[in-house]
Amino acid sequence: MTPEPASLCLGCWQNLHLPIPLRGPLSAPFRVFGIKPSRMNPNTCTICEMAFSKIMKARAVTIEATVMFADLRGYTELTQSLEQEALTSLLDTFYDDCAAAIWRYDGLLNKTIGDAVFAIFNFPVRRQDHAAEALRAAREIQKRFAAQHDQLAQTIGTSAADLGIGIGIDSGETNFGEFGQTHRDLTAIGTVVNRAARAQTVAKPGEILVTSAVRERTADMIRGDGRDYALKGFGMPVTLFSG
Amino acid sequence: MTPEPASLCLGCWQNLHLPIPLRGPLSAPFRVFGIKPSRMNPNTCTICEMAFSKIMKARAVTIEATVMFADLRGYTELTQSLEQEALTSLLDTFYDDCAAAIWRYDGLLNKTIGDAVFAIFNFPVRRQDHAAEALRAAREIQKRFAAQHDQLAQTIGTSAADLGIGIGIDSGETNFGEFGQTHRDLTAIGTVVNRAARAQTVAKPGEILVTSAVRERTADMIRGDGRDYALKGFGMPVTLFSG
Repeated sequence: MTPEPASLCLGCWQNLHLPIPLRGPLSAPFRVFGIKPSRMNPNTCTICEMAFSKIMKARAVTIEATVMFADLRGYTELTQSLEQEALTSLLDTFYDDCAAAIWRYDGLLNKTIGDAVFAIFNFPVRRQDHAAEALRAAREIQKRFAAQHDQLAQTIGTSAADLGIGIGIDSGETNFGEFGQTHRDLTAIGTVVNRAARAQTVAKPGEILVTSAVRERTADMIRGDGRDYALKGFGMPVTLFSG
Repeated sequence: MTPEPASLCLGCWQNLHLPIPLRGPLSAPFRVFGIKPSRMNPNTCTICEMAFSKIMKARAVTIEATVMFADLRGYTELTQSLEQEALTSLLDTFYDDCAAAIWRYDGLLNKTIGDAVFAIFNFPVRRQDHAAEALRAAREIQKRFAAQHDQLAQTIGTSAADLGIGIGIDSGETNFGEFGQTHRDLTAIGTVVNRAARAQTVAKPGEILVTSAVRERTADMIRGDGRDYALKGFGMPVTLFSG
């Protein structure tokens, strides 16, 4: 299922034409200097996240990217009834499914926020088809979770009917970089991030909602008409398509 | 304004009775092993965040904690009109103000998510008055930002009228720990986290909204009646107080 991890950092190779070994004996001297596989994408290295400004020659840049939010529906309700161990195991499954799918399609798992995951596609690994890759990752997350749903539901009990993942995706120009002086942090910011987050909040369990921008970039991967949604923070209704 | 940083890790001292030097010549041998001030709270060390399960003897625990979300209102609109450099500088100011205030009151700046900050009080530094500390931090964030608002508004232009910070705070039992096997991450999850996040979304620029739980724990710090809000994900209206 999961492909072999890369032996060279894909980000450094693409952006700097530098071969940085991530695994095996050649990686040992690099590890001494703290250069190792990134926690955000193990096929890239910590240079890609720690030395962003050195590589990009700016603390923040505007890049074309695709942003995905995935949220575990029903988790908060379960915190009232489930044992700590079962909760941790449920969240592990969710995070691990998301990570595997995001990394498979060259995305960056930028953050986990409670029961949600925030991923960016097209950095540091550049992909022309970043919107399609994000949609593929979203579909794989839904597929992986669906395959385990019945077993999870059995472990958890009847309240698991509402258990599922809601996903929102948007694509376009995004501010990406290291923000903050005292708590420096690598992240993406902007309308695309907000729109993806809002699309995620209106997605039903098991659903993927994408914007027109994603639909345009994913050719015939999406069929069916869009629906207008009133999203908080957006004056005009936003058309979303089921992905 | 900002107090001197701690020379020993407050978390390790409180929880393990271990003196871990964070600064000065004594800290050098610790740094060789990757033990240094935490990015989430520089008065605690990376042991507190990296070796959570070793210290707590469980991957996740239920603790009493106070959770705060602070969000920079008007930022997304500004991404349409502002230069990249001005945007970065605005976000730096916001992140740095939040970090200074959170750390001053012994909170943990767990994550920044786009234009929002997520902080936890009562871990790893234990404080009986964690709800009051969170409220003090929130007030300091508002004060610091207000003091710079006019200058920021001048730099940015007239669109800065809506520029301000919305803050939500809740207090109570929270699941806290390291979740995920492949992308292991230290965070807090549960109803308290969701309620604080939702309270933040309804707070106006410059406003702090706290739940009844926070009001009860902060004695006479909060005056005035509460107002009922319909918060997404909560079946019943939630009473919030202006803090």
